Amino acid sequence: MQQADIDGFYADPSQIDPEEYLLLDLYFECSGDPRSAAAHLCSEQSTAQWSRVGVAEDYRPRFAAKVIDLVVEGRRATTSYPLDPPVAGPVSACRVRIAHPHANFGPRLANMLSAVLGEGAFFAPGIPIVKLLDIQFPSAFLAQFQGPQFGIDGLRQLWNVHARPFFFGVIKPNIGLPPGPFAELAEQAWLGGLDIAKDDEMLADPDWSPLADRSALLGAARQRAEQATGETKVYLANITDEVDRLAELHDLAVANGANAVMLNALPVGLSAVRMLRRHARVPLVAHFPFIAAMSRLPNFGVHTRVLTKLQRLAGCDVIIMPGFGSRMMTSEAEVLENVAACTAPMGPIRPALPVPGGSDSAATLEAVHRHIGHADFGFVPGRGVFGHPGGPRDGAASLRQAWDAIARGLSVAEHARNQPALRAALERFG
Amino acid sequence: MQQADIDGFYADPSQIDPEEYLLLDLYFECSGDPRSAAAHLCSEQSTAQWSRVGVAEDYRPRFAAKVIDLVVEGRRATTSYPLDPPVAGPVSACRVRIAHPHANFGPRLANMLSAVLGEGAFFAPGIPIVKLLDIQFPSAFLAQFQGPQFGIDGLRQLWNVHARPFFFGVIKPNIGLPPGPFAELAEQAWLGGLDIAKDDEMLADPDWSPLADRSALLGAARQRAEQATGETKVYLANITDEVDRLAELHDLAVANGANAVMLNALPVGLSAVRMLRRHARVPLVAHFPFIAAMSRLPNFGVHTRVLTKLQRLAGCDVIIMPGFGSRMMTSEAEVLENVAACTAPMGPIRPALPVPGGSDSAATLEAVHRHIGHADFGFVPGRGVFGHPGGPRDGAASLRQAWDAIARGLSVAEHARNQPALRAALERFG
Repeated sequence: MQQADIDGFYADPSQIDPEEYLLLDLYFECSGDPRSAAAHLCSEQSTAQWSRVGVAEDYRPRFAAKVIDLVVEGRRATTSYPLDPPVAGPVSACRVRIAHPHANFGPRLANMLSAVLGEGAFFAPGIPIVKLLDIQFPSAFLAQFQGPQFGIDGLRQLWNVHARPFFFGVIKPNIGLPPGPFAELAEQAWLGGLDIAKDDEMLADPDWSPLADRSALLGAARQRAEQATGETKVYLANITDEVDRLAELHDLAVANGANAVMLNALPVGLSAVRMLRRHARVPLVAHFPFIAAMSRLPNFGVHTRVLTKLQRLAGCDVIIMPGFGSRMMTSEAEVLENVAACTAPMGPIRPALPVPGGSDSAATLEAVHRHIGHADFGFVPGRGVFGHPGGPRDGAASLRQAWDAIARGLSVAEHARNQPALRAALERFG
Repeated sequence: MQQADIDGFYADPSQIDPEEYLLLDLYFECSGDPRSAAAHLCSEQSTAQWSRVGVAEDYRPRFAAKVIDLVVEGRRATTSYPLDPPVAGPVSACRVRIAHPHANFGPRLANMLSAVLGEGAFFAPGIPIVKLLDIQFPSAFLAQFQGPQFGIDGLRQLWNVHARPFFFGVIKPNIGLPPGPFAELAEQAWLGGLDIAKDDEMLADPDWSPLADRSALLGAARQRAEQATGETKVYLANITDEVDRLAELHDLAVANGANAVMLNALPVGLSAVRMLRRHARVPLVAHFPFIAAMSRLPNFGVHTRVLTKLQRLAGCDVIIMPGFGSRMMTSEAEVLENVAACTAPMGPIRPALPVPGGSDSAATLEAVHRHIGHADFGFVPGRGVFGHPGGPRDGAASLRQAWDAIARGLSVAEHARNQPALRAALERFG
């Protein structure tokens, strides 16, 4: 591009109508002039040829993505990561804020992904390394999405869980166990104090555990557990499947007594999540497979907070995400950014319940609560409940006992002295 | 895991029924013992707790993913890429082949993605760096997918294009131009010799170019061009949208005269592509937004060939992919691997037409043809047709003229002396 062409992809923030643009924050590394590179980043994601040959016209004022801030953070001898084909010589490390006109595609998730994470971002000339760090939506755009049906307040009313975290448990053995014993394990956990017994994200509707059979047994067990405990109990059925089966599986599971459904958001696609949101009568829970493949590296891909925001926008009431601890290979700061992406104000879109998970048990509850700083979260052990040496009833009880200590300002370890289920959990998992 | 536990995730290749397993090839870097790490990789992607507490049972023989080959390629002082949180100390660089039992999830794309690119692959203890390099499917699994409806031979018959590449062109200006002049540009390109005039992957159904209006005008222009030239002409309508609109938009576009439809495969989701395949009456074309975010780094994420295979399995007749040349930041070897993933034998699944694209024009056709080594491919310039100084008619003609030279074994540059459209293309784009 010539200098005059580059100028067409820059704007002063005060000159654009904020309701008409998404704001994109990106990190990139470029080998040439950063100002030119950022213009290419905008050109490729919007109007790469802004006039017909021989016609005096310019589609950039209305349709171009525009740089509204560019900071060159430094120079590096090479790109952050070696590439094939290799990129020679020094690069500039830059941060850019781009205003992208959403009328180019409208309030559609699949088209928004194509524009902000497509050829424009990843094949802009001279920019081999790029990461979409954040996205912000104006209220005019948000108003065209439903977002979560219940939100955190709605979930607390619906499930009668107040002033404490929601206790989820992943029923295990997760793969292979037939529906009968699977339901028995869940019932024991509910009796012990679990709120939400859930299918593993890899357990859906296989021949050896058909959702019809499993949800019927779990639905009945749930109702028995509710009668026995006087508490609301939840069976979270994983209905992840081909997208044209989602509504049917939702209806089947709910008719059988499931009172929440789970989708693996990226594997089914964010747009399919939104489709199911229009149909769903129960809370919608998202799980995180596939996301790490595009988000783990600090300087490439897309930041998890962007995908958390998009899952919330698509309508997920609950977002399960990689949590604290070395096992989940995610920094504490990043977990907290994703928790905030669930709960921070987002125009008319309700908050989603964040569920940071990974190798949790009664032994980790206090630390998770301390990291988050409040009780508006879900806690989701697997083996911490279903691998408890006393069985799932004790496993679930150990969570409630740990919370009792935390809520009363007591040491969990000291409280465990008189609570055998908690003591056994700390001994096994602590 | 104890040593005996680890053994349960290993198998001799001769002992497993190849029809019951997907084969996964992965690269990984681990900080501990590679044999234990590979077992965890299998455990996390299948049965992470293979027995109930207190019950003598073992779900691994039937349900475990199993290591059938493990090679430690070397030791590295650190991981290939710095991570946050950082991984201390030396790591082993390994290649592993895993046999994953597909009955765990069945012939479902969303569930397969969850199993092979989910928590199992990316959160296996001790494996912070991992890339899924390849996937192979047994015929029992493939038989449950439709694959491409037409395949390359079907496309040649349908569109009457024989013994040469298919000439696509991305109508430009891609974003902003109203349907009337947009259709005029396409008509000129068809008259000049273009086979397939296509919407840009970011142009779908916005207010300023509704698909209804655009497809009606393009459909009519296409029929005029067919009458004028005696050739079959194709309008490829981009119907990428929310998944519950895909069938409706397909029907609308086809009724108006579009004779192929395009989806951005990852943004709509592979499962939505498969859903549309069941419905589609015209060839289905996939475009590549979002894929680079998870595939560019040599040692992390998922190799593009895996996603090419999955797009073919989902039913795409044509797969547009990053092509040759520095602009597309993809090695020649990787482009060729993706071309092969489209055309190599795949049980009952028909071949897809590979379309490696990126900044092409008459000036690059000879090199692309030489790289690929045959004419079973699509060629997809944008500005090379619609930015040609003589306009899109000359732009399209320049492609056909370049091919005439190649087919006759002549130098394209020498042939251009008597072909003004080709000469102008080489001068502008060469």
